[in-house]
Amino acid sequence: MTTDTDDRITKIEQRLQYVEDQLAITQLLASYGPLVDAGRADEAAALWTEDGSYHVERLAMRTPAHIAAMVRSEEHQSYLTGGSVHFLGPAWVQVEGDEATAVCESLMVLHRDGEYRINRGTASHFRLRRTAEGWRISHRESALLDGSPRARALLAP
Amino acid sequence: MTTDTDDRITKIEQRLQYVEDQLAITQLLASYGPLVDAGRADEAAALWTEDGSYHVERLAMRTPAHIAAMVRSEEHQSYLTGGSVHFLGPAWVQVEGDEATAVCESLMVLHRDGEYRINRGTASHFRLRRTAEGWRISHRESALLDGSPRARALLAP
Amino acid sequence: MTTDTDDRITKIEQRLQYVEDQLAITQLLASYGPLVDAGRADEAAALWTEDGSYHVERLAMRTPAHIAAMVRSEEHQSYLTGGSVHFLGPAWVQVEGDEATAVCESLMVLHRDGEYRINRGTASHFRLRRTAEGWRISHRESALLDGSPRARALLAP
Repeated sequence: MTTDTDDRITKIEQRLQYVEDQLAITQLLASYGPLVDAGRADEAAALWTEDGSYHVERLAMRTPAHIAAMVRSEEHQSYLTGGSVHFLGPAWVQVEGDEATAVCESLMVLHRDGEYRINRGTASHFRLRRTAEGWRISHRESALLDGSPRARALLAP
Repeated sequence: MTTDTDDRITKIEQRLQYVEDQLAITQLLASYGPLVDAGRADEAAALWTEDGSYHVERLAMRTPAHIAAMVRSEEHQSYLTGGSVHFLGPAWVQVEGDEATAVCESLMVLHRDGEYRINRGTASHFRLRRTAEGWRISHRESALLDGSPRARALLAP
Repeated sequence: MTTDTDDRITKIEQRLQYVEDQLAITQLLASYGPLVDAGRADEAAALWTEDGSYHVERLAMRTPAHIAAMVRSEEHQSYLTGGSVHFLGPAWVQVEGDEATAVCESLMVLHRDGEYRINRGTASHFRLRRTAEGWRISHRESALLDGSPRARALLAP
């Protein structure tokens, strides 16, 4: 094999890795809404690293076990039995080696009394890490888009 | 060409094929909302295989012709002339060879009396197949996210 | 290097380029909502080419400076301080060499009096161009999905 060929192949492998990383993260985040709206608590929690955390407003979930507990909570279960859509928009992803960040906005829609209403609009900032099992969320920080500067600050990778 | 080079290139081709498949399916599903909101009945129906079907609640569309007829129906046309947004979220896609599944949630928003309101929130499960013309939907099953266990069951690939 | 190997590698490079282009455009459009909801006027404007334009209903923004001015306008700032979600759906993208088109639908959600309501549903058609700095929007045309044939006409690449 000539050096030239080797270089071309190596460059392709690097570019392809970046593309695969972006897609893997996009897919990971695309699975969050369906998982929590289906009530699959353990699978939703497994999107995080073992030391992963999720802060949303005053609720600080410090481990995946806390995230699973949130999905199993009476409040979340009442969403499911009434009908809910955790609707995350397309993620804006930036990968740097084995770390990545992603930003997205989301709507939470609840079905009540025969009507679908937006319960909240949220800004989310994700930090992600490459693990032996693939990309996982190491931290998610979310805040309501209710005019607070804090939520707007989350909208940058 | 050394065996080593050949192996590397073959592996790249396989990885690239997977990435292209994922993107093709993502794009196919991203076109559904714009097509039905534009009233492009035949193009929307052509997202399905020739033997493709689409079940949503009590409506069983058994062929692409039935799907085109749905878009041309008086009910759907009234959505268009009033203003509608069939808003599908990012798809969660799993490809296995020439078959694939995809899951997404969606909102249907209608414009009426100068206001935009969510008419329904829906869970959709797609089965897809690779054809000579590219990926097509072989079956779509949708159900309202109104608390029914049936809708929640669709939210897994 | 054999001609056969060279051909395979060249073909891979072309396919990979197409995938990268699609993803770059998807990512560019995924950043628009977060940027304008964060009030990052210059970064939002920098998504466009230097001669880029954005027409939405009766508002014709003929340069990136006009787009930045729109984000800084009293009206847009009132959205931010009240809470807003510019929610763009997954983009339907078609790349042809150094030009591309993309189509998506979007919802603009405003937070007012403690409630989140859809302010408008919009159809958008983007023309994009490859520049030395990557893909940029050369023209965005948007119209309200309020039943007008004009908005529906934008929903095709």
